[in-house]
Amino acid sequence: MKANRMEAFSDGVLAIIITIMVLEFKVPEEHNWHALIELGPKILSYIFSFVYVGIYWNNHHHLLHMIRSMNGRLMWLNLILLFWLSLVPFTTAWMGESNFAPAPTALYGIILLLAATSYWLLQLSILRQHPDDSTFYRLMSKDLKAKMSPILYLIAIGSAYVSPWLSGFFFVLVAAIWVMPEKRIEDLVRN
Amino acid sequence: MKANRMEAFSDGVLAIIITIMVLEFKVPEEHNWHALIELGPKILSYIFSFVYVGIYWNNHHHLLHMIRSMNGRLMWLNLILLFWLSLVPFTTAWMGESNFAPAPTALYGIILLLAATSYWLLQLSILRQHPDDSTFYRLMSKDLKAKMSPILYLIAIGSAYVSPWLSGFFFVLVAAIWVMPEKRIEDLVRN
Amino acid sequence: MKANRMEAFSDGVLAIIITIMVLEFKVPEEHNWHALIELGPKILSYIFSFVYVGIYWNNHHHLLHMIRSMNGRLMWLNLILLFWLSLVPFTTAWMGESNFAPAPTALYGIILLLAATSYWLLQLSILRQHPDDSTFYRLMSKDLKAKMSPILYLIAIGSAYVSPWLSGFFFVLVAAIWVMPEKRIEDLVRN
Amino acid sequence: MKANRMEAFSDGVLAIIITIMVLEFKVPEEHNWHALIELGPKILSYIFSFVYVGIYWNNHHHLLHMIRSMNGRLMWLNLILLFWLSLVPFTTAWMGESNFAPAPTALYGIILLLAATSYWLLQLSILRQHPDDSTFYRLMSKDLKAKMSPILYLIAIGSAYVSPWLSGFFFVLVAAIWVMPEKRIEDLVRN
Repeated sequence: MKANRMEAFSDGVLAIIITIMVLEFKVPEEHNWHALIELGPKILSYIFSFVYVGIYWNNHHHLLHMIRSMNGRLMWLNLILLFWLSLVPFTTAWMGESNFAPAPTALYGIILLLAATSYWLLQLSILRQHPDDSTFYRLMSKDLKAKMSPILYLIAIGSAYVSPWLSGFFFVLVAAIWVMPEKRIEDLVRN
Repeated sequence: MKANRMEAFSDGVLAIIITIMVLEFKVPEEHNWHALIELGPKILSYIFSFVYVGIYWNNHHHLLHMIRSMNGRLMWLNLILLFWLSLVPFTTAWMGESNFAPAPTALYGIILLLAATSYWLLQLSILRQHPDDSTFYRLMSKDLKAKMSPILYLIAIGSAYVSPWLSGFFFVLVAAIWVMPEKRIEDLVRN
Repeated sequence: MKANRMEAFSDGVLAIIITIMVLEFKVPEEHNWHALIELGPKILSYIFSFVYVGIYWNNHHHLLHMIRSMNGRLMWLNLILLFWLSLVPFTTAWMGESNFAPAPTALYGIILLLAATSYWLLQLSILRQHPDDSTFYRLMSKDLKAKMSPILYLIAIGSAYVSPWLSGFFFVLVAAIWVMPEKRIEDLVRN
Repeated sequence: MKANRMEAFSDGVLAIIITIMVLEFKVPEEHNWHALIELGPKILSYIFSFVYVGIYWNNHHHLLHMIRSMNGRLMWLNLILLFWLSLVPFTTAWMGESNFAPAPTALYGIILLLAATSYWLLQLSILRQHPDDSTFYRLMSKDLKAKMSPILYLIAIGSAYVSPWLSGFFFVLVAAIWVMPEKRIEDLVRN
């Protein structure tokens, strides 16, 4: 039952994160389409984060459902994950406002990498509550997404100093492999 | 059960959207009624959006109750709908601050049109889970509101370049046909 | 079941209203106690609103529990109530920032009066679903609080032009009669 | 059942508090790592508050589960606790922005002390609903954490005028004894 409540709290935090990001859009002083086009990088940055938080919300929900008994460790690992995600509105705004400058873009990737790592630690802790031969265990152990994401984030962070477009490409790639169903990714990697 | 949680998440996001819009009202520096009157266009803009988000909340709830089995497609269509609605506080503030200038007013209509389109796609996907002869199917197929809204939004967007009042009139009209019970609209169109 | 969801949505909106008000406190540029004392009127204004929204949350909950069947009318009356309450963070900030100047203080009272009126209309609509001889009906018909509040708000609004202290006194008075248990108020009025 | 709803409302408020704190991070105008390092004190301040609100959320939940019958007193004590916690985003931002200056750091401690006192009063009220020989009663009566926290807060408040580092040390200490399981603290104090 306590896992249930952790889920409700996490859902609340994720719903707030995904919504308050829009407050970082300052209303343009000019009232024409040109002013909107200048907001372009901020809007792109917002779309990235909306999709990422959306993916976290979806996967997080499935993960928490696998909890068999709650404990303090799980609660703190979950809070650490929420902590990194709570910084997303800030890094989103900075990356957008800087027009994808190297440092803000790298920071954006670092925060996502830290969130992904926390998620992975949370997953590991929940996995320990399941026997080695369970479907959940087998699904997780061959979880390509979770293994590829940190590597792609690292490449995206490094790419920030080469080209913001390259960095953006890898952010899109991570999002894409999480949005796509698992099977298709396996097929893609195999072929 | 998963549809239940998507509903709770959507409700949270809608409650936050409807409430944070008020943060866009900057406290006037003067402390008299004149300062409040100058806020007029922002307040009008706020009322529009409050009613629209209220309507979405109400209909969205009814729609999600018709989901028979959840899937990734429904989840993403719902997130896309929430994405457009999450931009409403921004467009509301811009339209109000610009005193209903053409571009911000047109953008306001465009975002509402995109939200309405996402809603319609979500509805179509849910409709596929119901047989052709079900009450829900019949109700939806003759859903005048859903058919009239996009056309009225398009007119409102175009009108923004003619007169903000005309544009405002069509925004009020769309809101009115959604607030009114279905039957009366049918009667109105028939006569 | 639908009333249940309206309650959850209203709770969410009230929780957000009560919490985002704090965002109106601008962090003082000076870092001493003097800067905090200058925030005095804003803090006082915040305390007022925190208590008012707290009272609304508590009573609203009891009221919605008396709904026997949901309908569009109840939903819209509830949304209108939430609309007025959603303006509380704005009026709170304006009243505080203006150091309880006449116009902002009067507006604060006007919004509370409009919220109280919406609440009363909502209550009336729910009352119609109960027989005349029910306990709920009898409790409501002799509801002194609901009858005294609008009169006291009107006095507070008028007092804003005489003295902010007088106005503040009446705001405190309304809050006090709502915080106090019903029986004591009856005794007070009787004696 | 009413305690259940108070819990949901409190959870909502805590989720919003923990999330909107990030809005106090102003996006730096420069786009390099130096700008981020300058945010250091604000980030440290944010981490403190995130952990504190996280601890409150966790303990609050356990406490409310011990309520046997709801009453107005419990509701108001809970609202008072939420009031003090609602000020945390403000004190967090002030302490961070002032680079841990004496007054803001002391205020940060004062608000935490007031929150802890409210929590303790709430706990006392709930304790009265339990017999003297219950496990809950015995657990509470030897609750070292609750007894040590106010003293440590007072030391932290005083230390703010000596050194911000000393003050920070005591804030970390209070957080640490709450994060640590109860038994270890007893052992630490005994040895």
